[in-house]
Amino acid sequence: MTIDSDFKACALELIEAGRFIHARGWVPATSGNFSARLGDGRIAITVSGRHKGTLGLEDIMLIDGEGHALDGKKPSAETLLHTAIYRRYPGVHCVLHPHSPNATLVSRLFGEELVLEDYELLKALKGVATHETRIVIPIFPNDQNIARLADMVDAYLDRHGEIYGYIIAGHGFYTWGSSINDALRHVEALEFLFDVEMRLHGIRRDRT
Amino acid sequence: MTIDSDFKACALELIEAGRFIHARGWVPATSGNFSARLGDGRIAITVSGRHKGTLGLEDIMLIDGEGHALDGKKPSAETLLHTAIYRRYPGVHCVLHPHSPNATLVSRLFGEELVLEDYELLKALKGVATHETRIVIPIFPNDQNIARLADMVDAYLDRHGEIYGYIIAGHGFYTWGSSINDALRHVEALEFLFDVEMRLHGIRRDRT
Amino acid sequence: MTIDSDFKACALELIEAGRFIHARGWVPATSGNFSARLGDGRIAITVSGRHKGTLGLEDIMLIDGEGHALDGKKPSAETLLHTAIYRRYPGVHCVLHPHSPNATLVSRLFGEELVLEDYELLKALKGVATHETRIVIPIFPNDQNIARLADMVDAYLDRHGEIYGYIIAGHGFYTWGSSINDALRHVEALEFLFDVEMRLHGIRRDRT
Amino acid sequence: MTIDSDFKACALELIEAGRFIHARGWVPATSGNFSARLGDGRIAITVSGRHKGTLGLEDIMLIDGEGHALDGKKPSAETLLHTAIYRRYPGVHCVLHPHSPNATLVSRLFGEELVLEDYELLKALKGVATHETRIVIPIFPNDQNIARLADMVDAYLDRHGEIYGYIIAGHGFYTWGSSINDALRHVEALEFLFDVEMRLHGIRRDRT
Repeated sequence: MTIDSDFKACALELIEAGRFIHARGWVPATSGNFSARLGDGRIAITVSGRHKGTLGLEDIMLIDGEGHALDGKKPSAETLLHTAIYRRYPGVHCVLHPHSPNATLVSRLFGEELVLEDYELLKALKGVATHETRIVIPIFPNDQNIARLADMVDAYLDRHGEIYGYIIAGHGFYTWGSSINDALRHVEALEFLFDVEMRLHGIRRDRT
Repeated sequence: MTIDSDFKACALELIEAGRFIHARGWVPATSGNFSARLGDGRIAITVSGRHKGTLGLEDIMLIDGEGHALDGKKPSAETLLHTAIYRRYPGVHCVLHPHSPNATLVSRLFGEELVLEDYELLKALKGVATHETRIVIPIFPNDQNIARLADMVDAYLDRHGEIYGYIIAGHGFYTWGSSINDALRHVEALEFLFDVEMRLHGIRRDRT
Repeated sequence: MTIDSDFKACALELIEAGRFIHARGWVPATSGNFSARLGDGRIAITVSGRHKGTLGLEDIMLIDGEGHALDGKKPSAETLLHTAIYRRYPGVHCVLHPHSPNATLVSRLFGEELVLEDYELLKALKGVATHETRIVIPIFPNDQNIARLADMVDAYLDRHGEIYGYIIAGHGFYTWGSSINDALRHVEALEFLFDVEMRLHGIRRDRT
Repeated sequence: MTIDSDFKACALELIEAGRFIHARGWVPATSGNFSARLGDGRIAITVSGRHKGTLGLEDIMLIDGEGHALDGKKPSAETLLHTAIYRRYPGVHCVLHPHSPNATLVSRLFGEELVLEDYELLKALKGVATHETRIVIPIFPNDQNIARLADMVDAYLDRHGEIYGYIIAGHGFYTWGSSINDALRHVEALEFLFDVEMRLHGIRRDRT
């Protein structure tokens, strides 16, 4: 009962998050995937290939911390990117992967990282208390080998410490939080910053 | 009965698809047209000149595989582009023609084709399994003679084999799928890619 | 009764049109104004200074063909631009004046006219049967003296014959139709064309 | 009773304003804050850190004219910017602070002020009767010390007299009005003008 109701509550929040994220154009077609860690360590995650704007309960499944299906369904191909974040950060209870035009454009216009400075909205990122800060969003090359991609992210985190999210080139971005609302706040903040940086880039390029 | 219920189910899905596509600004005014092939080979298609955001059952009609009206209504002027796709691809059950600003801009900025490479979202196109692929979207000149336009598309397909969609210059694009949802997924994916390519084009032009 | 019900039907359509146009961002704040000609020649028009996204029946009033209030309310300051169109074109039953960012940008980027060619969507304009046409949208300088502005429009129409709409610089555009739906179709089509032309202008400027 | 019902009526209007402003993308994440002055001089203001698109009654609190909480809740960190405006302008009953991409871009592209001229939409600002006017929107550097920021705004207003709003660099803008609807009209008008100016800036830069 408790277990089931915990899953159902999380799944309903993910469904609602999907509707919100799709309505803004950030998970077109069947792109993106979302997950939430339950109280007992199991992870609710979107089933592979479902449309994120019209998720139903049957489109959310359960996996364990290593990414193995617990209910016979097929999880997202990128499950290992989710479990890697949960393993590293015990306080994280939600991982969201939108696939937006702005994140894709940023990955084409900038090199290995996007540096965000002097934005009040950086304070929407957990623990940031002033705009006078320097937040780096790394951009990793895309790879269909998700285990290899997860290792690259892990190696980066070993070297650089905590980050708020990362972009996979031509693919979208990952961010997370201590709750679904926390992660959604990061999605909105990063989307805003990608939008502004991308538009500035086009205009500034003319000057030089 | 069965025949009627098959038509009605398809028509309701096309009505819903129209609402979705119009809400995103991809079929302004009375532009665009949509169709779905029924189990018995007949085709449900939008009546000529109707607004795609507010379709009712009376705005969907039946034609045969050659594009002749089966119920006395007047089908879209571009009916032959739909029937040509159904004739060529037996597995296709839906053809959608949005008329979006981005598709129009792409046709003005690029020449005879748009080449899409290194986008994760290419995997939303049926049968594409990796971003490391090269998808060509041909751009055909617009023509009010639809039979001639259909012949041009057919000749291209004879030479180049299967494609996922094409743009008619200054006019919009065609895409299709094995179901209405399949075709809608292609619409969302191609719109995303047109948007990104169009914005990159404006920025890159400054460099050279 | 009949008179009242004719007014009420028109007013409800204008209210609905306002909701649609505002939702797309084309009548921000209290900008824009809308009217419809009733069967008996009187004109239903938006009251001065009302928000077009949340119109109620009390925000629509009646004027005669010369723009005089018939019910003690104060019509839009631009009423004479509406009556001038109704006087010239007996078949016109609706005049819409959106105030969109794209129309404003077009008026800043282009000179005295915007020339639209080779767009399939031109066929959404009444009587246009092919993209191979050349439609001119004149751009008039803004003027707080509406009688003088109306004279300028009239003089232009005397010289150039029928047009589908015009832009007032830094202000928005006027278009019309034989019904509210007709005029709305023109709004959607012109907005699409302004959007595309404005974005092309920014990109092409880099070339030359 | 009266006191409570005055608070509740204002709070419900602020909740509705938040939904509207968030839906347009102008208060992403938990950015922005809103307030309204009640008949007795107390001020209803959003609680610190709440999401403005999904405000409930519990997210609106009461402060006095100096910004002290009257109900034990924690008001927005920027409360002193609200009270400074109410102190200066007795006729103002609402202060809105959206945090939009366009206001942020304007603050990066322009220097210490944005000059708005020759826009019909300037007439949406209270007391402006013609487009032939020159409205200055000052841009202040961002500062986490809100008392210091409020002093800077005050000093500017002492020197320059009444303005319609101001931008805080990388942060968003403030505007106000004699009612919530008045302030919302200013939000819509300024957003329109920021959007147009920002897009023109990108295009014009190419010319020079």
